Amino acid sequence: MSGRVAIAGAGCTAFGEHFDRSYTDLAEEACREALGEAGLGAKDVGAAWLGTAFPDVGVYRGRSGMDLAESLGLSGIPITRVSNYCATGGDALRNAANALLAGEVDVALAVGVEKQRDRAPQESIVRLMVETGHPSYQKGFTAAGTFGVFAVKRMEATGLTREDLAAVSVKNHEHAARNDKAHHRRPVTAAQVLASPMVAWPLTLLDCCPATDGAAAVVLVREEDARKFRAPVLVAGIGFSVSSGWDGPFHDESFDFIGFPAVRQAAKAAYGRAEISDPVRDAQLVEVHDCFSVNELIAYEDLGLCGRGEAQRLLRDGATKFGGRIPVNVSGGLLSCGHPVGATGLRMVYEVARQLQGAAGARQVPGARQGITQNIGGPGAVAFVSVLRKM
Amino acid sequence: MSGRVAIAGAGCTAFGEHFDRSYTDLAEEACREALGEAGLGAKDVGAAWLGTAFPDVGVYRGRSGMDLAESLGLSGIPITRVSNYCATGGDALRNAANALLAGEVDVALAVGVEKQRDRAPQESIVRLMVETGHPSYQKGFTAAGTFGVFAVKRMEATGLTREDLAAVSVKNHEHAARNDKAHHRRPVTAAQVLASPMVAWPLTLLDCCPATDGAAAVVLVREEDARKFRAPVLVAGIGFSVSSGWDGPFHDESFDFIGFPAVRQAAKAAYGRAEISDPVRDAQLVEVHDCFSVNELIAYEDLGLCGRGEAQRLLRDGATKFGGRIPVNVSGGLLSCGHPVGATGLRMVYEVARQLQGAAGARQVPGARQGITQNIGGPGAVAFVSVLRKM
Repeated sequence: MSGRVAIAGAGCTAFGEHFDRSYTDLAEEACREALGEAGLGAKDVGAAWLGTAFPDVGVYRGRSGMDLAESLGLSGIPITRVSNYCATGGDALRNAANALLAGEVDVALAVGVEKQRDRAPQESIVRLMVETGHPSYQKGFTAAGTFGVFAVKRMEATGLTREDLAAVSVKNHEHAARNDKAHHRRPVTAAQVLASPMVAWPLTLLDCCPATDGAAAVVLVREEDARKFRAPVLVAGIGFSVSSGWDGPFHDESFDFIGFPAVRQAAKAAYGRAEISDPVRDAQLVEVHDCFSVNELIAYEDLGLCGRGEAQRLLRDGATKFGGRIPVNVSGGLLSCGHPVGATGLRMVYEVARQLQGAAGARQVPGARQGITQNIGGPGAVAFVSVLRKM
Repeated sequence: MSGRVAIAGAGCTAFGEHFDRSYTDLAEEACREALGEAGLGAKDVGAAWLGTAFPDVGVYRGRSGMDLAESLGLSGIPITRVSNYCATGGDALRNAANALLAGEVDVALAVGVEKQRDRAPQESIVRLMVETGHPSYQKGFTAAGTFGVFAVKRMEATGLTREDLAAVSVKNHEHAARNDKAHHRRPVTAAQVLASPMVAWPLTLLDCCPATDGAAAVVLVREEDARKFRAPVLVAGIGFSVSSGWDGPFHDESFDFIGFPAVRQAAKAAYGRAEISDPVRDAQLVEVHDCFSVNELIAYEDLGLCGRGEAQRLLRDGATKFGGRIPVNVSGGLLSCGHPVGATGLRMVYEVARQLQGAAGARQVPGARQGITQNIGGPGAVAFVSVLRKM
C-alpha cells in the first residue's frame, strides 16, 4: 500500500429512535456534518460509499448507491453500496481509501446508516430466516445465541464470571452518560444487568446492545492534501479480514471460541501499516465492538491490550474505564450507543477523530494522540481494525 | 486515474435454472474457471469483491463477503460485498481495480452471483415491497412497469413500433442459439413475441428477460503484470455513474424518458479513459443491458452507436446483428441469457473477454480487438460502462 488517507471531516447523528426521520434524513445529516467540517459541498465529492448491512431488518433502503444520491443531491458520480455485517462501515471507509490512493478521485465520502426501529420484530429478516432457512436457525442461531456460546466457553477456559460481563455493561453505560449521541444514557447497576431478562445464557438483556437508528460519515482525502483542512485526522492504518467463521465448511482451525482469528488478522495488518507494536503504550483510547458484553472482553485480547485469558483482569483493574490506563468505549460502546449496523464502524471512527481533535467535550481523554477502532461481524467472520492518529 | 488493470482470467457458469446447485456452488465454479485461466489458486487472491444485488429475491446469500470465503476457502483477506442494482457486477470490478491501483493487493477477484429461481414469486421482495412499502408500489412500480413508460415515450417521440421491440427479442434469441451458456436458446419469431402475454404495455413476456441463476467472475491484475498471463485482456476504461433516477426528489432535469443520463455519463468517462471517440469505428462488439427490449434501443443512443432517435433505424438496418457493422449482444443478451442481477455485468465482461481472445467459438466476431459493455439499473439511476481491449 503506497500512501495514506486522512479524515477531512466527520459526522454522526444522534443514535436512538428516529420515528420522525427517514433513512435518507439520517444519511444526509451525517454527511452534511462531515462535509461541513471539511468545508466542502456535495459537488466536491468524487465518489461515495454507502454502508448498509440489513435493509430487510429496517426500511428497505440502502440497497444501492442511489439511496445516497437522493439524500445529498449527488449526481453523475460513482456511489457504491457495501455490506459486510458489522464491519460494513469500516469496509465503506476502506474502499473509499482505495479510490483515493488509486487516484480515481480526490475527495471520497464514506457513510454508514441503518434504520432498524421502523419494523416490528415479527416482520424482520430473523422471522424470514426461521421460516425459510436452514433448520439450525430455528434452534437459536441468533446473534445473542452465537456469542453466548463464546461467553460459556470463556467462563470455562478463563474464569470469566457473569459479574465480569455485567461490569462491562455498567462501565459502558456510565461512559454513555457523557455522550449526548448515545441511545441509552442512564447508568445501570450490576444487579440490574444480572436481573434483566435472560436472552441467551449467560447474556441478559443488558448484556446486549439495542436495535437503533443512526448514521455516521467521514470525508476522506489523501494524506498530502490533508493539511488544507481545519482539523485532519490521519488514518494511520487499517486492516480488514474475512474468514468463513465458526459455521463454515472451511472454518479456520484456530477458531477456538476464545477469540476471533479475523480480528487478530485485521489488527496485525492495521498495526503493521500504522507501525505500532504495543497498543496500550501507543494508543490513548480504543473503541471496540461490544455488541454483547462478552465481545468487549474478547476484543481486549484479540487487539493485544492484554494477554490471552487476561481480559477480565484488565477490566477488574479499571484499566479500560474512563481515566484508566487504556480506556475502552468512552463513547458508551454499542451497549449504550446502540448498533445501527452499517453506521457503527464509522461512529467509532467519528468518536476517535473527535477525541484526537480534542473536541470530545465531557468525555475527552486527555492527551489523546492515537486511537483504535474494532468491529467483528457475522459468525465471527468479518473484522475491521483502524488506527487513527492526530496530525 | 493512474494506471490500468487487466483481466488475467474470466469465468462464467451456465445461466439458467440450477435447482441442484447452491449459491456458493455457482460462485465457486465461476471463480475457479477465472483462477484456472490465470493459473492462480485461492491463496494468491489478495482481496475479493462479491456482487449480489438481491439476496431477498433469492436465497438470502451474499449479504457479506463471508459467503465467498465459504465457497473458495479464502481466509484472512478482505472480501467486500457490493450491491448496486443491475450495475452490481461492474461495481465489483471497479472496486477491485481501485484496490490494485492503490497497491492494496496484486491480485483481485471480482465475482457476481445471484440465485433467483429457488424462491416463489409470492415469497419475493416484490411482495414485501407491495405489502409494506409506498403505495406507488401497489400501482405497478415494477421493472417492467418502469421501462414500459420509456417504450411509450419513445414510440411517441421517435416513431418506435412494437415490431421494433419484437425485433430486438428475435435478434437476441437468434444469437443465443450459438451460446451454450444462455438460459433460453430457442429462436422466437416476431409474431410469437407480439402474441406473448402482455406484462406492461407495450412490453410482452418475450420483451422481458427471465429470472435466472448464474455467476461470473474475473481475476484482475495491474496492466504491468498482465503479460505474465496467457491471454490477458486490458480494461482500457470504465465509467460508473449514479444519479437519483426518475423518481428521486432531486432527479436530473435531463432525465427525459428518452435516454439515461447515467449511461451517457458512464460512457463518457469510460471512453475518455480508453481514449476512444467513436464506438462504432473503435469497437467490434457491444454487450448492452437489454433487461427489456426497449433498453437495448436506448443503449444504442446513450452509448453513441447512433444519434438520438435513430436506434430503431440502426436495428432495422441489421447493423447490430451478428455479422453487422456493430454487433450488439452476440451472447443473446439478458433477454436470452437471463439476468442473475449481480452476475450480469461480469457475464458481459466475460463474453467480451472471450471474443477478444478469439475464443468465442460459434459466435466469434471476426477481428474483435475492442468491445464495450453497459449496464443500467434501478429507476435509470445506476450505470456502468467498460471498454475492453485485446492485449
